[in-house]
Amino acid sequence: MTSTDTRPASSMPTERLTSLGSRLRAQLDGPYAHERAAARAQFPASHLLRNPEMGVAESREWVLARLRELQDAGFGSAGVPDGADAVSDPLTAVVTFETLAHGDLSVTIKSGVQFGLFGGAVMNLGTPWHHETFLPDITALRLLGAFAMTELGHGSDVANLETTFEYLPETDEIEVHSPTPGATKAYLGNAAAHGTMAAVFGQLSVDGIGRGVHAVLVPIRDGAGRDMPGVTTGDHGHKGGLLGVDNGTLRFDHVRVPRRMLLNRYGGITDAGEYASPLDNPNRRFFTMLGTLVRGRVCIAAGSGIAARRALSIAVRHALRRRQFPAPGRPEGVLLLDYQTHQRRLLPLVARAYALGFAQNELTGRLVRIQGGGEHSESDQRELELRAAGLKAVTSAFANRAVQEAREACGGAGYMSENRIVGIREDVDVFATFEGDNTVLMQLVAKGMLGGYAEEWKALDRAGVVQAMSRLVGGTVAERTSARLMAERLADTARGGPEQTALVDRGWHALMFEERERHSLGSLARRIRAATHARDDRFEAVNRLGGHLQFVAHAHVERLVLEAFVEAIDGCADRETRDVMERVCSLYALSSIHEDRAWFMEHQRISTGRAKAIGDQIDALCRELRPHALPLVEGLGVPAAWLGAAFLED
Amino acid sequence: MTSTDTRPASSMPTERLTSLGSRLRAQLDGPYAHERAAARAQFPASHLLRNPEMGVAESREWVLARLRELQDAGFGSAGVPDGADAVSDPLTAVVTFETLAHGDLSVTIKSGVQFGLFGGAVMNLGTPWHHETFLPDITALRLLGAFAMTELGHGSDVANLETTFEYLPETDEIEVHSPTPGATKAYLGNAAAHGTMAAVFGQLSVDGIGRGVHAVLVPIRDGAGRDMPGVTTGDHGHKGGLLGVDNGTLRFDHVRVPRRMLLNRYGGITDAGEYASPLDNPNRRFFTMLGTLVRGRVCIAAGSGIAARRALSIAVRHALRRRQFPAPGRPEGVLLLDYQTHQRRLLPLVARAYALGFAQNELTGRLVRIQGGGEHSESDQRELELRAAGLKAVTSAFANRAVQEAREACGGAGYMSENRIVGIREDVDVFATFEGDNTVLMQLVAKGMLGGYAEEWKALDRAGVVQAMSRLVGGTVAERTSARLMAERLADTARGGPEQTALVDRGWHALMFEERERHSLGSLARRIRAATHARDDRFEAVNRLGGHLQFVAHAHVERLVLEAFVEAIDGCADRETRDVMERVCSLYALSSIHEDRAWFMEHQRISTGRAKAIGDQIDALCRELRPHALPLVEGLGVPAAWLGAAFLED
Repeated sequence: MTSTDTRPASSMPTERLTSLGSRLRAQLDGPYAHERAAARAQFPASHLLRNPEMGVAESREWVLARLRELQDAGFGSAGVPDGADAVSDPLTAVVTFETLAHGDLSVTIKSGVQFGLFGGAVMNLGTPWHHETFLPDITALRLLGAFAMTELGHGSDVANLETTFEYLPETDEIEVHSPTPGATKAYLGNAAAHGTMAAVFGQLSVDGIGRGVHAVLVPIRDGAGRDMPGVTTGDHGHKGGLLGVDNGTLRFDHVRVPRRMLLNRYGGITDAGEYASPLDNPNRRFFTMLGTLVRGRVCIAAGSGIAARRALSIAVRHALRRRQFPAPGRPEGVLLLDYQTHQRRLLPLVARAYALGFAQNELTGRLVRIQGGGEHSESDQRELELRAAGLKAVTSAFANRAVQEAREACGGAGYMSENRIVGIREDVDVFATFEGDNTVLMQLVAKGMLGGYAEEWKALDRAGVVQAMSRLVGGTVAERTSARLMAERLADTARGGPEQTALVDRGWHALMFEERERHSLGSLARRIRAATHARDDRFEAVNRLGGHLQFVAHAHVERLVLEAFVEAIDGCADRETRDVMERVCSLYALSSIHEDRAWFMEHQRISTGRAKAIGDQIDALCRELRPHALPLVEGLGVPAAWLGAAFLED
Repeated sequence: MTSTDTRPASSMPTERLTSLGSRLRAQLDGPYAHERAAARAQFPASHLLRNPEMGVAESREWVLARLRELQDAGFGSAGVPDGADAVSDPLTAVVTFETLAHGDLSVTIKSGVQFGLFGGAVMNLGTPWHHETFLPDITALRLLGAFAMTELGHGSDVANLETTFEYLPETDEIEVHSPTPGATKAYLGNAAAHGTMAAVFGQLSVDGIGRGVHAVLVPIRDGAGRDMPGVTTGDHGHKGGLLGVDNGTLRFDHVRVPRRMLLNRYGGITDAGEYASPLDNPNRRFFTMLGTLVRGRVCIAAGSGIAARRALSIAVRHALRRRQFPAPGRPEGVLLLDYQTHQRRLLPLVARAYALGFAQNELTGRLVRIQGGGEHSESDQRELELRAAGLKAVTSAFANRAVQEAREACGGAGYMSENRIVGIREDVDVFATFEGDNTVLMQLVAKGMLGGYAEEWKALDRAGVVQAMSRLVGGTVAERTSARLMAERLADTARGGPEQTALVDRGWHALMFEERERHSLGSLARRIRAATHARDDRFEAVNRLGGHLQFVAHAHVERLVLEAFVEAIDGCADRETRDVMERVCSLYALSSIHEDRAWFMEHQRISTGRAKAIGDQIDALCRELRPHALPLVEGLGVPAAWLGAAFLED
């Protein structure tokens, strides 16, 4: 992966793809086709997958050994600077993470913990002394570390962490302490076994005044693996998956470290023992510090997407080989993928995997622009954070659903570990929780949108909003629509009347996606306003809008995903590829509308007759795409030789 | 569990329940409250749960040891006769299976393989010689056996199994053979390690004439664990769960067994070497043989329900302890279960667990009546099979969903094996596949309904059906409705007009459930008729109705579930308990309608305004039930001391 790497590519036999499969893959690889192809070619594919029989201890050692091998091969720390003068390379970081996600996901996550989280904290929150002192050892895996943010009592509530950092001027030290059992740091990778240091998050107090959440580097084990004085490490032991990641706990009993161990980029203590920060507003400081960690969510979204693609690749390839009951004209039995129920369970998921993949490309591009040293505003950063939160939540939820569907679609064979789906299932489960619980992340997205709403729509009075929303079905639309959703096509659609357009009309899809977002956001804004004026119990009044918040965030992310897909199609010059992509996009868009068709009917955006027709149209698209099933999974970008599923090998 | 058992009850401390919890539990235990309470009291709860760190080999031995212990304690073979003169006791069999499902599910399934499947084949398909010769050793665990039906090439397609049984008159033997790799018997419990015999299913041929699928007992290993000559056993190794069940494969290379090893209750070979059967019609013979195995599906449905209840009990109890963000008036943080989003993700699942539990009671009662020696018709048997297929599919699908939701609702803690949810998740996954793939089972249900349709509705012409279905919303209804769904209340509802009734009106729920089933079945019947007259490709014409079949079966099972719930409420005399049950039933019914509200709108059964109101009503019911959350999970019947979740223990 590094440009100076001169070793031969891996011993993986060159993959033979259908022509269409190869072209689809190039489209989905998109702007990063070059980097991804290079990563695929150079990834050391031996030792790709862990033996599922390995227990916890063996898995941990196996994973660490793989990490060292990958590090030697130029994968792993790629993108994390190895010293004060080196620059961060976010693109390489994300592409590396994605590539690793094709193999054992414990390796991927262990790498993410070490380089992305622990290394990322040092890089983003530290200053040159930290960079010079620690990054060379971190990137070379001589110093393994934990990212100690989550506490047992505080999973998603970072602002209220209980761990304390008290500055002691007499010794110029910081005292790190866990005042309650709930303050115990928990679920931390590298904490149970391999880590010798942790980037610990807690409440800094200088001069008796609380300065908010900061991070301090704390040695947790000595060279012999013994807990440092005052530190108590714990081991979570066996988990639902990711057995190779040594998740554990940390408790601190008045542990003192020198002042310089405070990661002081956004807030530090001067030689005079005074608190100093370039950001005066503590709230802004808090969000700025957290904002630097956005890359983790981008990576988890990317890894979730790859996990889903792997499982779908296995299930679709199996369904192209496995025969079920004989039928008239098919004495040898019907191929699984020729059953309508089977097409319907797998092909819309394949379409969604493409859609989320294009959105991931867009998100990665945004991260690269902002963290790659380009000019950007605070609002660019904020937009990146919201998109990362939304896509992480949506893609990890999708991965869980898709992998389970793939498992069941492979019947009993799908349950055998040698066919690899259940292992992916176990590992990807927690992607819905770490780097932010999905429900909490979607709340963040919706709240962010409400902010945007105030800005953009404050000119519209309440009645005006209602009116603007109530004349869509059967009528014409003259509202602003996203430029990126091809305003012209959309306008054509709108002029003819949404109900008169073809179900596969992209303009109509765009209109529906926009309306779902805009209307649900508008009504949420009104309900929030009313709730915040509630007399009795404001918490309860806002609490009741919880489901509405989730829907608004969902509608928002779906719209961004469709935009990304449409842009990708616009960029595709090849006619046949483009034709298939159009159908895949329609399958994605109609599946999304179909799942929410009750909402569209309830809000008079779709008539009941049209809603019924959507299901039939989805079936028809599945039939049209069925002959392209193999190219479609090839396009998902997982080399067949990497799937490792025993039942595909004979 | 056996009536002669005189040992003291287990050492489990007596469970302290709230008064309401105890009363709800009595209701859900229903007609089997006595048997279930006795089983709970006597179940040897030590060694209840397996250490999740155990690997495959260790798990298998641990499970076998537990099985022997349970056998000694009167659990295990309970219900399976131990000789020719003993009688089968289906109630004890199901209650025992349910009880075991509170512990390690590998033990449950291993027990089911040994006693239910292998023992069940000998009992149901064999004749007195088989009973006398094998049942004593089977029930005493001296003879462990596999149930060898599934083949690698034929999962759900039992009629087309490839394994051959050729009768050889010259030696009076049957030659068992696997003619192709696809004929290999696969996924069989007891086959990889512990089994020394198998009940093998294959195509019997006598005198060169195919006699259809029969079962033959074949020794597969000798006393030293070596494969018998001609037999090749294989090991599936690690799986997605159920590590303690030794699933494996069997191949036969011209293996000969004496004629009497044929399980000949429904078809055998006379001393003169001629085929003889009490059932002339081969098709009827096939379905009669398979029909005797219905108890397996009843048990899997029951076990799925228990698995879901365990996970929901853990998640709800956790949500009653765990606090999240502080809020106005709640400085100590809001309890998870006070978040509307959290109520909404868990409480409707709890309601559904109740609903499916009442339906399970009804199904068990049906099984007991039919297999307990009572009078019954062929159509009673057929109805039992369809209900078992439907409830198995619906409850195992529910279990997968509920356990995963419980996992995510517990955040990172839910992912730790010590909190037990992920282990349940891994084990219950395959419940969706074994004893019949859920998609295939739901097809069976729909096809069975189409048969019933022809019988019941043949008097109605096509136009008449359409007409009867199109005057419901806002109008009046004079159609037949199920007597069990309280025709009078329903009639009241209908007279007032469905749209004018309260959303929690049970009559309206009943009407909606009936309409969903009746209309979708009617339209399916018409479409099937049209498809079977298709000119080109009849398979493809019928294939396109696959999704419709699934919906019809779903609508049918939902209606049966609601009926069972309503009957249970009618049988409850206690006012407070009944009031809570009414709300739980409304929550179940409205959640079911809400999930399908698009269908109801599309078919003019519910107006768009009313559809919107349903979601709010569900939220309101969640709030009303929130204060009863603890009694509700107590009512689910899982003793708190059996949950084994570390985070509930401090």
